[in-house]
Amino acid sequence: MEANEKSYVIGLDMGGTNSVFGIVDQRGNIVAQTAIKTKGYPDINDYVAASVEALKPIIEAVGGIENVRGMGIGAPNGNFYCGTIEHAPNLEWKGIVPVGELFEKALGVPVRVTNDANAAAMGEMAYGVAKGMKNFIMITLGTGVGSGIVIDGKMVYGSDGFAGELGHVTVDHTENGRPCGCGRKGCLEAYCSATGVARTAREILAKSDEPSPLRDLDPDSITSYDVFCAAEKGDKMALEIFEFTGRLLGRTCADFATFCSPEAFVFFGGLCKAGHYIMDPIQRGYDEHILPVFKGKAKLLVSGLKGSEAAVLGASALGWE
Amino acid sequence: MEANEKSYVIGLDMGGTNSVFGIVDQRGNIVAQTAIKTKGYPDINDYVAASVEALKPIIEAVGGIENVRGMGIGAPNGNFYCGTIEHAPNLEWKGIVPVGELFEKALGVPVRVTNDANAAAMGEMAYGVAKGMKNFIMITLGTGVGSGIVIDGKMVYGSDGFAGELGHVTVDHTENGRPCGCGRKGCLEAYCSATGVARTAREILAKSDEPSPLRDLDPDSITSYDVFCAAEKGDKMALEIFEFTGRLLGRTCADFATFCSPEAFVFFGGLCKAGHYIMDPIQRGYDEHILPVFKGKAKLLVSGLKGSEAAVLGASALGWE
Repeated sequence: MEANEKSYVIGLDMGGTNSVFGIVDQRGNIVAQTAIKTKGYPDINDYVAASVEALKPIIEAVGGIENVRGMGIGAPNGNFYCGTIEHAPNLEWKGIVPVGELFEKALGVPVRVTNDANAAAMGEMAYGVAKGMKNFIMITLGTGVGSGIVIDGKMVYGSDGFAGELGHVTVDHTENGRPCGCGRKGCLEAYCSATGVARTAREILAKSDEPSPLRDLDPDSITSYDVFCAAEKGDKMALEIFEFTGRLLGRTCADFATFCSPEAFVFFGGLCKAGHYIMDPIQRGYDEHILPVFKGKAKLLVSGLKGSEAAVLGASALGWE
Repeated sequence: MEANEKSYVIGLDMGGTNSVFGIVDQRGNIVAQTAIKTKGYPDINDYVAASVEALKPIIEAVGGIENVRGMGIGAPNGNFYCGTIEHAPNLEWKGIVPVGELFEKALGVPVRVTNDANAAAMGEMAYGVAKGMKNFIMITLGTGVGSGIVIDGKMVYGSDGFAGELGHVTVDHTENGRPCGCGRKGCLEAYCSATGVARTAREILAKSDEPSPLRDLDPDSITSYDVFCAAEKGDKMALEIFEFTGRLLGRTCADFATFCSPEAFVFFGGLCKAGHYIMDPIQRGYDEHILPVFKGKAKLLVSGLKGSEAAVLGASALGWE
């Protein structure tokens, strides 16, 4: 009867700042949750020890580790094949960190690792708007642009575990392509992330004299939320910023469709809170550029999961495997 | 013992002009071959009847249809899911043609259909340079640019059977993007196909006064083979044409790598005959644009199969499924 008793999994959403843990039942309910800071543990072993300490009471709450089938970790640069985090620029552990193995030893249950965007895709497939879909592309619009690709019901990990870096597809090959954090120029991420939106706002403000409530703000601290607030007031410039961003993203998604002809694109992350201000231009850009054979086939959807829960649920979904 | 006896498959490479049939054994040898014209049969039933007539003697040569496990067809706009050819612009049958079903009825063996580039990828995976690979992208450089994508050992067909249209990824989003046969502008195919090379030659000839043996030709009838011949004579302009074409293709393949992180790209088709004149610039463009995490990982290879055999072998590989 052991198999039936193990009716919970642990999900860990590891961000640059916080690490959120959830215990999830077979229906996808987060029955208990806890968190620690990700920063402040220069030695990964101390981080794992602090995690286990934080997990203890919530594991006890579901009857002990005997009831836990496994653990899934969604982490920046997480590698599914190796259970490692590799060269993650926004974590303090350098090089290759065997995070899966360390948690396995500490908890005594199987642990799977993947990157954060893949975890979001798994969450969406298990519990969100992609439930029942076999072919879709998850696009996460946060500080950067991440992606998780599902083909024929399976996550695409590629030859090395790092497939699905669509944020680094080049959308401007000219000299004027915006510098990207990856060291290259013109990446999608440099335009269609939350920070890309802020950058577009600064560029448009600098280029024109048009009045806008955005002018009242310190240009260096403008956020995509400020642009949203201005759009809500009917500000023409804010609408123009979303139009530029969404059209470019939609056009690029039309290119992605030629790859795997997905049933849907699922958008997730801070920028989606701009609702129709961003989704309508995405749809327009997509419809304008999609190859005739794919016209009208893929749905453009917003994630069905609460932001704070999606990543934990997604990571936890790996724990069942 | 029936299973052991059925040791042959039929492969059909259906082109716009010719239809080539091969009977293939389990080691990938084409033991018998025949062909008919594709054109000249306005009714698909007449085409199937003519095919069966042509196949009769070569099926007899392997001991009759009892020894044939199945048939695979590689055809323009072939749909694996439905066994159909759908709206193929260069075939005379309009709409949706149930070619798989018709051959099944006529021959009494299972028939699978896919598009020509996917068939080439299957041939490469079964018998060519991609033997043993689980993740690679096949790029066919002929009149157009086709592609077949293999992820985790399986062909990617997508939600509708039409995945892998990488020839229609947009590489120039400006007003100046070249018109493409698909009705859109700036597609990879408009630049990096054999016809794209000829177009580039005409453009460069018109723009400059530089001497070149290409000037002696009628601009409207220049082919990529003419450009190759000029390159062989050390012509600077011909080298420039290949440099432009290859760099653009390499750069675009670097974008494709972000999708599925393949072990290799396999290039196939007429343009590959230009050898290092095209392959070196492809490698340069790729190396210049590849995301650091993927650097040095994927091999850029030329197909290991003879052009005339690859498509038949690829199609036949479907017959074993």
